[in-house]
Formats: sequence, structure tokens, C-alpha cells
Amino acid sequence: MTATAHPAGPDTFAGRLAAFSAVGRWSAVNDDLPWTPAPRSMPCLWRYADLRPFVLEAAEFVKGDAAALRVITHLNPGHRSYEAACGHLYSGLQALKPHEAMTCHRHAASAIRFVHEGRGGWTAVDGDRISVGAGDVVITPGRRWHEHGNDADDGLVIWQDLTNDPLVNTLGATFFELHPQGTHLTSTPRRDTLASWGGLLLPDTRRGHQASPLYAYPWEKCREALDAAARAGHHDPYDGVVLEYANPATGGPVTPTTGCRLQLLQGGERTTAHRHTGSVVYVAAQGRGTTVIDGTGFEWSAGDTFCVPSWAAHSHANRSSTQQAVLFSADEFPLLRALGLYAEEAVEDAAN
Amino acid sequence: MTATAHPAGPDTFAGRLAAFSAVGRWSAVNDDLPWTPAPRSMPCLWRYADLRPFVLEAAEFVKGDAAALRVITHLNPGHRSYEAACGHLYSGLQALKPHEAMTCHRHAASAIRFVHEGRGGWTAVDGDRISVGAGDVVITPGRRWHEHGNDADDGLVIWQDLTNDPLVNTLGATFFELHPQGTHLTSTPRRDTLASWGGLLLPDTRRGHQASPLYAYPWEKCREALDAAARAGHHDPYDGVVLEYANPATGGPVTPTTGCRLQLLQGGERTTAHRHTGSVVYVAAQGRGTTVIDGTGFEWSAGDTFCVPSWAAHSHANRSSTQQAVLFSADEFPLLRALGLYAEEAVEDAAN
Amino acid sequence: MTATAHPAGPDTFAGRLAAFSAVGRWSAVNDDLPWTPAPRSMPCLWRYADLRPFVLEAAEFVKGDAAALRVITHLNPGHRSYEAACGHLYSGLQALKPHEAMTCHRHAASAIRFVHEGRGGWTAVDGDRISVGAGDVVITPGRRWHEHGNDADDGLVIWQDLTNDPLVNTLGATFFELHPQGTHLTSTPRRDTLASWGGLLLPDTRRGHQASPLYAYPWEKCREALDAAARAGHHDPYDGVVLEYANPATGGPVTPTTGCRLQLLQGGERTTAHRHTGSVVYVAAQGRGTTVIDGTGFEWSAGDTFCVPSWAAHSHANRSSTQQAVLFSADEFPLLRALGLYAEEAVEDAAN
Amino acid sequence: MTATAHPAGPDTFAGRLAAFSAVGRWSAVNDDLPWTPAPRSMPCLWRYADLRPFVLEAAEFVKGDAAALRVITHLNPGHRSYEAACGHLYSGLQALKPHEAMTCHRHAASAIRFVHEGRGGWTAVDGDRISVGAGDVVITPGRRWHEHGNDADDGLVIWQDLTNDPLVNTLGATFFELHPQGTHLTSTPRRDTLASWGGLLLPDTRRGHQASPLYAYPWEKCREALDAAARAGHHDPYDGVVLEYANPATGGPVTPTTGCRLQLLQGGERTTAHRHTGSVVYVAAQGRGTTVIDGTGFEWSAGDTFCVPSWAAHSHANRSSTQQAVLFSADEFPLLRALGLYAEEAVEDAAN
Repeated sequence: MTATAHPAGPDTFAGRLAAFSAVGRWSAVNDDLPWTPAPRSMPCLWRYADLRPFVLEAAEFVKGDAAALRVITHLNPGHRSYEAACGHLYSGLQALKPHEAMTCHRHAASAIRFVHEGRGGWTAVDGDRISVGAGDVVITPGRRWHEHGNDADDGLVIWQDLTNDPLVNTLGATFFELHPQGTHLTSTPRRDTLASWGGLLLPDTRRGHQASPLYAYPWEKCREALDAAARAGHHDPYDGVVLEYANPATGGPVTPTTGCRLQLLQGGERTTAHRHTGSVVYVAAQGRGTTVIDGTGFEWSAGDTFCVPSWAAHSHANRSSTQQAVLFSADEFPLLRALGLYAEEAVEDAAN
Repeated sequence: MTATAHPAGPDTFAGRLAAFSAVGRWSAVNDDLPWTPAPRSMPCLWRYADLRPFVLEAAEFVKGDAAALRVITHLNPGHRSYEAACGHLYSGLQALKPHEAMTCHRHAASAIRFVHEGRGGWTAVDGDRISVGAGDVVITPGRRWHEHGNDADDGLVIWQDLTNDPLVNTLGATFFELHPQGTHLTSTPRRDTLASWGGLLLPDTRRGHQASPLYAYPWEKCREALDAAARAGHHDPYDGVVLEYANPATGGPVTPTTGCRLQLLQGGERTTAHRHTGSVVYVAAQGRGTTVIDGTGFEWSAGDTFCVPSWAAHSHANRSSTQQAVLFSADEFPLLRALGLYAEEAVEDAAN
Repeated sequence: MTATAHPAGPDTFAGRLAAFSAVGRWSAVNDDLPWTPAPRSMPCLWRYADLRPFVLEAAEFVKGDAAALRVITHLNPGHRSYEAACGHLYSGLQALKPHEAMTCHRHAASAIRFVHEGRGGWTAVDGDRISVGAGDVVITPGRRWHEHGNDADDGLVIWQDLTNDPLVNTLGATFFELHPQGTHLTSTPRRDTLASWGGLLLPDTRRGHQASPLYAYPWEKCREALDAAARAGHHDPYDGVVLEYANPATGGPVTPTTGCRLQLLQGGERTTAHRHTGSVVYVAAQGRGTTVIDGTGFEWSAGDTFCVPSWAAHSHANRSSTQQAVLFSADEFPLLRALGLYAEEAVEDAAN
Repeated sequence: MTATAHPAGPDTFAGRLAAFSAVGRWSAVNDDLPWTPAPRSMPCLWRYADLRPFVLEAAEFVKGDAAALRVITHLNPGHRSYEAACGHLYSGLQALKPHEAMTCHRHAASAIRFVHEGRGGWTAVDGDRISVGAGDVVITPGRRWHEHGNDADDGLVIWQDLTNDPLVNTLGATFFELHPQGTHLTSTPRRDTLASWGGLLLPDTRRGHQASPLYAYPWEKCREALDAAARAGHHDPYDGVVLEYANPATGGPVTPTTGCRLQLLQGGERTTAHRHTGSVVYVAAQGRGTTVIDGTGFEWSAGDTFCVPSWAAHSHANRSSTQQAVLFSADEFPLLRALGLYAEEAVEDAAN
């Protein structure tokens, strides 16, 4: 079959060309290639109070075992067919019932977990069995064996999974494995990465950690760091007092694609609006505030999740004039920076 | 509206949850997250002889001017709604008519151009006005002003654009600008990047070039390098004699996301099968061969384009027992490596 | 004047050649170029109890003011004409009397200070005014303004300066300046680098710190890190439990040329002998032990200083069977590694 | 023996202290630590015409064999006891007689060789047997086996060795080995590093080359690069048209400590004076000129060697108004930069 077998002329051009898996592109700017970023993700807020009942309900009828999950996934309304909270960041609320444990597994994707509530919860990564409580952050770099459990006699443990699954999948790099023994804790040397990597001094051999060798970031230590930075005079016009969870082996982000930050808004503080490439998923860790995203205000309280799509103008305000507010966030900045695609600008916008 | 306002029970769970932009995820492995890479892109071959008539036909009815293009885009049949040849690599055949020139523009995406035919063609990047002929490769790093033209009195100039547009767009980092004067050549200092960066000695100030400061890779010099490497004994079981177009300022790939390579298959050579993460778009530069991709053979001749999706097993064979065959290719390896997602393995498969 | 004007023959060759500032070199191996490292520095031990009286005595007749010092310098007996404790590491005991302060200055060399004794001592680096006590380590990167003082009403503050002065000087890169106002604390923004850089979270802008932005390493935190590492199972056959004072912005050493480490020897522990390129100056921080260097034992107690020259075989033993011993050390490993000259090997030697 | 056993008082202080291998240091600025760099090396010029007769004479009575050399070493008059041409750069003229070959050896030091004259000379590095002629530069990274020879039937081959021996030795990192078979060419795979690394395309595996994998820099290619850079408009006020011999795997200098450059002075050109830390040894490759160093003019012609000590102000002038002049140089810039000790400034000095 050849093109000449068909009647000539622009009118039938597309049809004839389609037979050869090709299409005419007559403009450098189109829906697929806008003048400026036009991500499919929309700004969105998910209230913890709205989703928590579903987490409890799911715990009744969803069994957690091999390769299984029990996660209420934050689904961006801009792309319901595509499981991501924003851009290529996956976010979901995972619950573990008393005495429940999850089969050990590993995958190419990396995960950042923020704990919302519950006692007795633990997550084990690469031999480091970490007991977690509210506000703790646990890093699971790609391809490391990990498993989770709840040792408590009653009460759910609920944490939020923030992963780069959507990115890894769209890049065709997804790998998932279950551990043959169901647990890696019997065969992997026990580690205490906080003891090894959480101090001012570091192990003497620490070359080439593309992801953080430190898996546990306890809430108290992180919150202390934020207060110390505030006392030391750190302040950013767009984000208040903001610090990044750091890979101690490199001083860089905790994973090659996704970073996470903790920021403090003083009572009554209102930040300047800006925008940048790269999506961000925020989790309110403390207090209550309002974040204006492309002109729309989103009111959040502790526990709520909201997202700022790439290039959306945004500013944060603490709704309390006296209490501090703290936001945890996971961002795609390392991804954008590694590819030379990070851009940022201040926004002169009354709405923001 | 609250969840409790609805009838309880798993049967209506999804519907009630959807109202809060959330969805239950009960399994770690699903269509979105397979056990191993399952890219939407399919192996595909596009014959130059099939598409060239469309390029000629389009030249008659598509006017090339501001922000306009005249490109026959290679559209992967795995995702017709999504303009990419494979993975996040865009590929298309662009034509310029005699005395035609394209308005100067710049964008966040980076482009690699492989010239198929024509005399008098030129492309200017960041002040370097490069005259191009068959086999030449031109690099356009992101955000550099560039424009193209055809100085010949007759005959089309046809080249292939290989860009990371799909990646930049899906990451929400697209920026496109037209040059206010229509051309940058009157306002930008003239450069000769081949003279500055194409030798054994380099300019004395060359720190922090994330993309190549060398824009022109003439066919003769590249082909010579391939022969020299062959004489020097270079050989890879999976790719024959293979060399990468290098960023002279870093020794790395030509752009942060996309690399390109030139490989030589000796008469009768047949490579071993392997697979890796990261898509590759091949353009046959010389000779004729067969590439077996996941068990299916694709026969190519000089000018043809074909693609190998992420993780697809593939091996190459030169169909001539006496003539050399040469493949040019653009790959996503820098992208995958930068993110810690590159994986590779040999394949024991008779079919391959 | 030409060579031929002189009588010919090897006998007068050297003399005639010397007139042209040249010399014949007939062997690739000679005193200047041995088969293996033959540093001029010799192993040596300096007892704190021996030098402390001189520190006290000097405090009586040496006035501390502009560009002046009061330092008892550890002088390696292998090169008395050359002020270094070992290799290119300078070491000396500095004392400050009550209410004494030193004029602010800066230099190209970088300094690491280990505090031996005294209350009320402080050192200010680049705006960070650090109160120091026994065991604290303070980093002064090159070219940062710094000054010191003693706020106590009685008692000397004594600390040990460990600098790369000999290296910077032999490389012809020495620069020294006095601050025009005598102090930088009135004109430089106050900093608290421990607050900013001493936690798990780091400031959001931290690119390109060749030297540590953290200046204060308090003894308690460092000692805790050592205990934590011991509990976590860290152990090195040559150095026991050993950790490096880290540059939090890079995960690397505290300065580009000199690193420092803290190591723990359990009661009765005796390490395996090894040798490496790069000099090390040790300061006993706790306990008592014996270090065998090239077959000679050096007995140390808390406060003592000793050195291991490049390539000298050495092993450490804790002389107490029950008490822990701790060694602080400054090393040239970053220097050797940056230049591709680091080498290390285990030593099979009964003497060691 | 204790300090108190001696009579007290400043007068005897130094003597008593010396018994404990220590010395009082009462000033931060002294001969060892000047306010600005005061290297022992002095500016110096060595005429090729003066030294060549000695090279010929030595060839008569010095036998070249195992571990032996026949080198006329440029000895800086500022430190006759210390074999270096300037700073820590060694320089010497080596000669090989017809059918003479040197025993294969390797060392920690790295060498850069500039060929002055002779046909039939060859140097083999790590399996790459390179035939050399006037103007060629050969790189021998540290610890690579290498050997040299002269295949001609008559005439000496004379080249200049530029090494970092003085640095490696003063750092206590010297290692020297003779190859057990006397040659490595029978046991090492043959390489052609110019074929592999000398083109626009590079081998596909090239990570972590701290020193250049390219050993041969032929004069024609280097000279061409200089002309091309001149045509492309490169020009530096202090050095004219200047290019650096590049490590193609990194875009950096050819070795971690020593770089080399080639610079072109157009007819009548006179550069602006500047100074920088780091020593430089220049070899006039073409033409004749005058370099003013700290106020003293040194007239050079092709073949001559001269040096600029660290921080010495210097400017170059081409003494011909019509002919081009070319200077080859080896510098310590990579060393100084790696250690954060590089400094540079323009000099407002009539004398320069």
C-alpha cells in the first residue's frame, strides 16, 4: 500500500497519512504544546475529615495481605483516569489495623510517608524497623525491601503515602517484587539509619547515595529544626520559614525525583505569591490556613491535603493571628532541576 | 455533604468516595502499576519512502511562517491521542522549500535534528548559523533561540526533528516564545560552536553546561569517529560499534534528558538481544538491516525510522553480508539515569 | 656564555650545567623520588602535661593583640625548620586569658579547632559567635572573618588549632588580612550555623559550599553520634567506631583539604594495622591507649597529641580493659583524594 | 624530664620548649606565613639553545636503561636543593638515542610531555603506542604503565617532561614501579586513545575518568583548534587566544593536579597584566616574544622554557609585528581550584 494509491489533496491528507501511523503537525503551539505550562492537574483540596470515614470503612471490608493495599487515593479531578494527586505525584491514605502487617515488597518507585495518627505503627526499610508516630516522615528509596505493620492492640495506624509511581510508570520503568519469605527482617542485617546518619558526624564510607541513606525523620527533630531556623532568622518571602528534608550523604533531596519540605507560617503571616514548574502536594501538619492558588482560596486545617499544579501562582496565609501553622510538602523540584526544566517567578497578582 | 449521608457498604463505596475526588486502591499491582514495564508505546517502523510523498504534498499546501511548522509526525500506534514516536520522544519529518525560512523561536524543550536530504539548508542556534547536509546532526538545547532556512534555488531540505516535547509537556514545563524581531541573527553575536568546541582543546571557561555548547555534529566527522572506533577495537555485543554524541564540556550526553548515538553493524553482523528502560527512536543512516523487537522483525533501509519501547527485548542484524549498516538513534537514557531508573539486562530468547 | 666555552667531559658537567640553572637527573628513583612514600615527618607524641606549663608561662609574657598569637606549636622533629606537626598539617595549643580577645582576621588557610579546657571561651566565625567548652570542635573555612575571646573572670581557655597553613603556604596561596574595625561582629549579620545546619532538615538554598557552612560541632552531639553508631553496629577493623565531621551541604569533609574524625575504642580493643597516604594528627579526647606506628609504640592519655605520617603503618589499642577511649583526628584525606593520590593497604606486621 | 626542671623566664623559654619538639609562635604573620603569597620559586628563563648542547653531551655518557633517565632538569634558582622548575611543577629535557628504549615503569605522579624535536620517537602509555613529532603532547596519568623509545636510525628525540613529582613527593604519596617484563606492550591490550577519544563522539562507557583517557594530542590538531578559536572570535585580555588541553571524558583538565594550555599571540599583540595563584611553566612553541614577570622582561624564542611563580604579575608580548607566537604551558590551576585556593586579579602596573 502506498500513499499515491489515494486521491490527492489536503482534504483527504490526514486520512491517508493515518494509514502510515503519522499525522501532520502544522503549528508549533497547540493543545499538546501550549505557550506556557498547562498541566492537566487542577488545584484541589482533600479534607482529612471527609476521607477518614472511608479509611475506617475500607478497613472493614478490605483485607491487607500479599501485594494488597488498603489506600484511599487522592485523585486529581483534572485526570480521573490517571491515578495521581498532582502532576506525577501519587498520594493516598493507608491504614493498618491492630496486629496487621503487610507483605514485604520492593519497587522502582520511591515513597515518602507522612504519619497522620495511631500508636504502634512501624515501617521497616532495608533492615531499619522504624516505630512511627504522628508527624514522622519515613523515606523508602526505590528498590529497597520494605514492609509495614501495626503492633497496637487497638486503633488504626493511618499514614499518607507520597510516591513517584505515576512518573516511574509513565517512563516505562516500573518494577514490583514481593519478598520470597514475605518479610526481609529475618534475612537483612538490622540497621538504625537515624543512629548512623542522623547526627553531625557521618559514617566514614558514604559515597554515591543517589537516595537518602537516612530513612527516619522523627517529627520532634524536624519540628525543632524549624524552630531553630526561625530563631536563626531564616525566612523566605514565598514560603515563610522553609527547610528541606535532606539526604545527609549529599546535602541534596531525599530521592532523585521527589523532595519534601517543612515550612512554618507565623501567626497572621501571609506569603508573597509566586509560581514554579513542578507539582507540589501539601499536607497540613499543624494549624489552619488558606492557600490561594491561581486566584482560588483553599482553606486547610491540620490533616488536610491540597496540591499546587506546575506553574500555578500560589501564596499561603495562616488564618490564626496567634498560633503557628506548619505545612509538610512533597515536590517534584529534584526532577525538574535534574532535567534543566525548573523555572520560578514572582507573581504580581492581587488575587494572590 | 459528608460520607455518612450515604448508604454504607462496599457496593456503593466507590461512588460515595468519588464525590471527594478519591478512589480506593486495593492492590499494589494493577494496570497503572504492572509488575514490569508495560509502556503504551508499541514497536513500530516508519518507511521514509512511505512518508516522503506526504512531505512533498504538504509542502504544497502548508505555509511555513510564524509559529507554524510543516512536519509529518511519527505517531506511535499505541497512543494515537498522544503525539510521540515512542515513550516521551517526539519525532517528525520537517521540510523547508527553496528560499523559505522559519521564524526564530525558543522553547523549554530540547531538539536533536538529523538531516535526511537537501542542499542549502541551514539552522541557526544561539548565533551559530550552521549549513547542513545529509547525515549532519544539530543540537538545540532548551531555551536557546533558533531558526531554520533553505537557501537553495530548488529542492526541499528534509530533516528529522527528535525532541523531548512530550516529556516537557507532561511535566508541565512547556514554554514557547517567538523572537520579537523574527530573527535572532541580527542581535546575537555570531558563533561557530564547531570551531570553539569541536577540537581536542577547549575554551578556558566552560563550567556548568548542562546541555552541549557544541551544536553541530557534521556527518563526516561522526562517521570517521565510528570507523576509528572500529579500528581501535571498540565493540559492544548488543549494539556493535557504538558511540555517543558527546557534550564536550562535560563528557556527558548532549542534553539532560535525551542522548543520541551512532552505531555500526559490520556486514553480516547480528547483535545479542537485550532490553533496558528508556525508549529509543532509531533512524537508519546507511545500509539495510532487521531489528527484532519483542519477537517481531522490522526490516529497515537507509532513511527509515523505527522505535524500541522501554524494556522491549531487541537485537539488530545487518541484512547485507558485505556492506556496513549504520544506525543513528535518540534515547531517553540520560533521563532514566538522572532519576535512578535505568535498568538493563541481556535476554535469552531464540525469537530475539 | 655557552656550554662549549668550558672543558668537556662528565667530570665538569654538573658545574657547567649549574650556570644555566639546570641539573642532570640520571635516575628516576632518588632521594627526592623514592620507591614508596618517604615523608620527612616522623611519628611523634606531644604530652599535654608537658606543654601545658609552657602555655601558662607564655601567657605571662606574650601579649595577645593585633595579628599576634600565643601558640605553642607542635613541631615535627623530622623538619624543625618547617612549622608543621605532620605533613602539611599545622597544630598548636592556643591560650586566651580572662577578658582577652583577639583581633578579627581572615586567611586563605582553613582551621579546625579542638577545645581542651576553660569556660567562657568563644570563637566567632562569619557572624556565628560560638561559646565553646571542652571537646567542642569549631570549623573556620578559608577566607571567613573570625575572632576569638575569653569572657571568663579567671582561668585560661586553651584549644588546639589544626590548620592547613603549611599546605597553603607551600602552594604559594597564602593571604592574611586584619579586619579594619578589629571585629566583624558589628558589621556582619549574626548567624547560628548550628541552628541552621545542625538538624535533619536543611535550608532550602544550599548549593556550592566547598567548605562546611556548619561551624560548630558541640562535644555532646558528637559523642552521642559515636555512641549511636556503636549501638547501630558500625565498626572498622582499622579504626574501631569511626565517624567523620561532615559538611551538611555536601556530605563531604569539613574543608576541601582537611577532614576530621572521631573514633571510639572499646575497653581492651586493639585495631588491625594499616597504612594510607595522607598525614593524620590525633588528639586523645578520652581515655588512654597505645598507638603503634611503624613498630614503635606511643602511649597517650586524654589531651595528648600524636601524629601518623603518610604511609606509616599504625594500629591503635585501648590500654584500659573497661573504659572507652576516644580519639579526635585531623587528616589530609580530602586533599589526597581530590588529587587522585589516596592509597591504602592493610599491613601484615607483628610489630604492628 | 619535665619543663619545671629548667630555669624559668622567657629568655630560656625556646630552649626548654625545644626539648619537647615545640616552638612558640607569637605572630600570625611571619616568614612561613606572609601577608600575600611569597613563593620560593623565582621567575626564570631557560634557553633551549643553552641546554641542548648538554642534552647532546649527556647522551654520550649517560646510559638509558632500567629505572634510569637522561634528563636535563630545569632547576629553579629560588630552591636549588629542591628539584622543581616552579612551585611543584617538575620540568626537564629528556633525550633518546637511535634504537634506544626505556624500561616500562609507572608512578603515582602524572606527566605531560611536549616534544621538541626528532623523528621516530614513540611513547607508549597503557597500551597506546604513540609516534610523536615536534609539538605533540602526550599525557601519562598517574599509575599507568608507560615506556618510551626512538626507532630512528639517527638523530636524537628530545622532549620535555612536565610532571607533578614535587607535589606528589611533598605530599608523601610517591610510588614507583618497574614493569616485571620490562615492557607492558606484550601484555596490555593495544589501544588507540586518539581514535577512541579524539572525535566528536565518545565511547558509550566513560564514567569516572579522573585523568584524561586521551593520551595523544597531535600538534596539527591542537594548532588547528587554536586557529579555529581565533576565527571564532575567542580572545582573553590576559592570554590572547587561549585553549586548554581537555579531558574528553569530563571536559576538565588532563590531570587532577596539572592542566596544560596552548595560547596564540597575534603579531604585535601585548596582553594585559594579571596574577593568579598557581605556578605556570611555559614552553615557547612558535615565534618569539617577551613576558614581563613582576617587572622583569624575559625574552623567549621557540624552544625556550620560562616560569611564572604563584601570584607573580605577568603579561605577554609578541616581539614580531607580523608573525604569530604560540606558547604551550603547564599549570597548577586544577590543583589550586580543587582545594579552593585559586585566586586571580588584574594588575595596574606600568612595569607590566
